[in-house]
Amino acid sequence: MQKHLIGAAVGVATLALATTAAAQFKPEELIQYRQAGYSFMSWNMGKIKVNLDRDYNQAQVAGAANAIAAIANSGMGALYAPGTERDIGDVKTNVKPAFFENPEDVRDLAMDFNQKANALAEVAQGGDQEAVRAAFGQVGEACKACHDKYRAD
Amino acid sequence: MQKHLIGAAVGVATLALATTAAAQFKPEELIQYRQAGYSFMSWNMGKIKVNLDRDYNQAQVAGAANAIAAIANSGMGALYAPGTERDIGDVKTNVKPAFFENPEDVRDLAMDFNQKANALAEVAQGGDQEAVRAAFGQVGEACKACHDKYRAD
Repeated sequence: MQKHLIGAAVGVATLALATTAAAQFKPEELIQYRQAGYSFMSWNMGKIKVNLDRDYNQAQVAGAANAIAAIANSGMGALYAPGTERDIGDVKTNVKPAFFENPEDVRDLAMDFNQKANALAEVAQGGDQEAVRAAFGQVGEACKACHDKYRAD
Repeated sequence: MQKHLIGAAVGVATLALATTAAAQFKPEELIQYRQAGYSFMSWNMGKIKVNLDRDYNQAQVAGAANAIAAIANSGMGALYAPGTERDIGDVKTNVKPAFFENPEDVRDLAMDFNQKANALAEVAQGGDQEAVRAAFGQVGEACKACHDKYRAD
């Protein structure tokens, strides 16, 4: 297990732009920050869905897609630093242990998600709703690919 | 009070790009989403501070500043829709009632914050640390201006 954790730590570090981002925060704070990031992305995914299903507001969709992409690009890997693998007091995590044991697979999933989020933000700047719908679907699939493997529901 | 709430609702709506963003969510979800947004911005503010105080990683600062600006620009006004003025079950809010009674002042504070966040994201693309330090300070003051008036601690 110790070997796994060290391996995971090295892999997770490559996801982040710098490990200094984690050092100043307690593990329970890192868990809460990563949950905040996904929660805020979820709100913005929901907004885009409503825009595609009902009245399309280009500025709102662009703003939502930008938020998702910017959060994805902000170095969230640092939020999975060692010590964040399990519940800490009242702070619960839904990340499965397997997440920390498969750093290469996680990195691939994360990079795919970031690419799809960036592509959505790009097309959302324009007014082509069908292009946004397709890119939105791709982001949703990238979310699900990681959730299916590594999120305990 | 009813009059205040109606006035607040109208004012808050002007903060949002569209009110449809709120209609699909329950008030308690909106409270949680707004808290998630501020929490994630706080993590990124903390990262920028560490970069300015210790080793400066330009890519990390740019990513953090982009996340703050994109969240600020994502239409957070919709997260203060009617029904979100008070605690709902276990979901507590730290927003003072005065926030909802002063929509014009809130709008001014929000616009100032967004401008400062955008300015920080702009200078963070470059490598001028002192410019980033100054813009970062301005964002911090804009955060505090609203917290001092409208956040119950």
